[in-house]
Amino acid sequence: MKFATFQMDGRTAVGLVEPENGRIWPLESMLGEPVDGMIDLIRRYDGLKERIRPTGRAIDLASVRIGAPIPRPARNVMCVGKNYHDHAHEFARSGFDSSAKGKADAVPEVPIIFTKVPESVIADGEAIRHPGAISDSIDYEAEVTVIIGKGGRGISREQAYGHVWGYTIINDVTARDVQGRHKQWFLGKSFDTFCPMGPWIVTADEIDPASLAVRCWVNDELRQDANTRDLIFDIPTLIETISAGITLVPGDVIATGTPAGVGIGFDPPKYLKRGDRVTIEVEGIGRLANTLE
Amino acid sequence: MKFATFQMDGRTAVGLVEPENGRIWPLESMLGEPVDGMIDLIRRYDGLKERIRPTGRAIDLASVRIGAPIPRPARNVMCVGKNYHDHAHEFARSGFDSSAKGKADAVPEVPIIFTKVPESVIADGEAIRHPGAISDSIDYEAEVTVIIGKGGRGISREQAYGHVWGYTIINDVTARDVQGRHKQWFLGKSFDTFCPMGPWIVTADEIDPASLAVRCWVNDELRQDANTRDLIFDIPTLIETISAGITLVPGDVIATGTPAGVGIGFDPPKYLKRGDRVTIEVEGIGRLANTLE
Repeated sequence: MKFATFQMDGRTAVGLVEPENGRIWPLESMLGEPVDGMIDLIRRYDGLKERIRPTGRAIDLASVRIGAPIPRPARNVMCVGKNYHDHAHEFARSGFDSSAKGKADAVPEVPIIFTKVPESVIADGEAIRHPGAISDSIDYEAEVTVIIGKGGRGISREQAYGHVWGYTIINDVTARDVQGRHKQWFLGKSFDTFCPMGPWIVTADEIDPASLAVRCWVNDELRQDANTRDLIFDIPTLIETISAGITLVPGDVIATGTPAGVGIGFDPPKYLKRGDRVTIEVEGIGRLANTLE
Repeated sequence: MKFATFQMDGRTAVGLVEPENGRIWPLESMLGEPVDGMIDLIRRYDGLKERIRPTGRAIDLASVRIGAPIPRPARNVMCVGKNYHDHAHEFARSGFDSSAKGKADAVPEVPIIFTKVPESVIADGEAIRHPGAISDSIDYEAEVTVIIGKGGRGISREQAYGHVWGYTIINDVTARDVQGRHKQWFLGKSFDTFCPMGPWIVTADEIDPASLAVRCWVNDELRQDANTRDLIFDIPTLIETISAGITLVPGDVIATGTPAGVGIGFDPPKYLKRGDRVTIEVEGIGRLANTLE
């Protein structure tokens, strides 16, 4: 099933979406009880899911405004750096990679994890705002993103998928100059509006995250074209690594890294210009499109 | 004034503290209205402060349990890396510093910012839990910490102190092996219980943060002994740097970096052993003490 956060009658609601039929069912009227946002749904999902089905009054999807599925995560979004081989090499070559000294250590031996502030999240269709004079190298990164369902610590690879509630898409927008200059990536990754997320969450039972086509266009030009089967560290490994010392909680967001084809992968680099539209498509999830303004 | 979060009658409250007199005044009874935690106080402080004074029924400070002043920050704690010259060199020499290639670039040219998850925060007196087999190099870092009052973006150095609500202490506990191996520091800094904070917040009007003695003991051995006048990037520069692209919000926590004398600064390194007690004292703020278990 697919779940979206949307605006209805001036308030925020969660709904079951069938994008192929252009319909959305508000969960509150379907269930006859309040649902206080996506994280509340995630926490109570096991007790509610038997009663969730596309019946009753549906709303025309085109008539509502879809928000980010988790408009304000409860803590920073966790992101994985250099998690596809080709991208690890293109980034190391770019001169902005403070994590590698050269070609020999371009590919990481363990996952590289950093964060973006939760307030950087924006919805499909919302504008990425250029931060102005503080950066002249804004880049895009298409990423399949894990939404944690059941929390926990010390989760093994074997148990990991049991802790995943679903998947969405993130555009891990990056100010390359700030990322490189400040060594730790948090700052160049966290500018306001730098985390487009959406358009909705697909529950884990519906797709195989180990084999999903990931594509990204800037305007009409296909820039990234890859598959999650080429991840260096797969989703179970990421969950095992992070949860080894940090207790994961329901609604945690983990962006799994981007494949080759980002702006700094080209010579000369193809940074985003104002007016450029970035469209990311992930097989089985949907499309996320945002314009730099 | 000093404000603490504490447990009273099984619930969490905020109080005005006079540690020298061993007394605490619960704000709710003083003000005759609810105060929903420290962040609520920070948001509403300008409208309340005229009515806050040490009058009415006080409680014996020794009879209550003091919590972390902000027990659960609204987003990840922001931290500054290598912000004292001597520490920048000791860290670069240690072999764990993924941000520097050698002695020449040991001292950063711009602030290095990373984060810790909000759930890693613990109170004065609570145990730092050893993460077990995933690290054998647990280290301490004494840090003067800024609490943001008025939010904002694009805050200049000159305006910066107008956005500071107060100061507290953080022990930026670190798993050095994990920090080094994973390149980005988030993971080795964010393990459960790795962010002792407290014991309370001193409001900005009460101290000059540009000249505060910072000391840290492991058991009875003085390890760190420095002054904030030796910060490479002062507090106004940190606020200007972070807010250039990220909107700061009331209750944001910024740990300003640690001076020389951490465990990896010694040869051989003096990592924390189970049972070691770390005590941090900052002039004008107080003492924060936690034991590794």
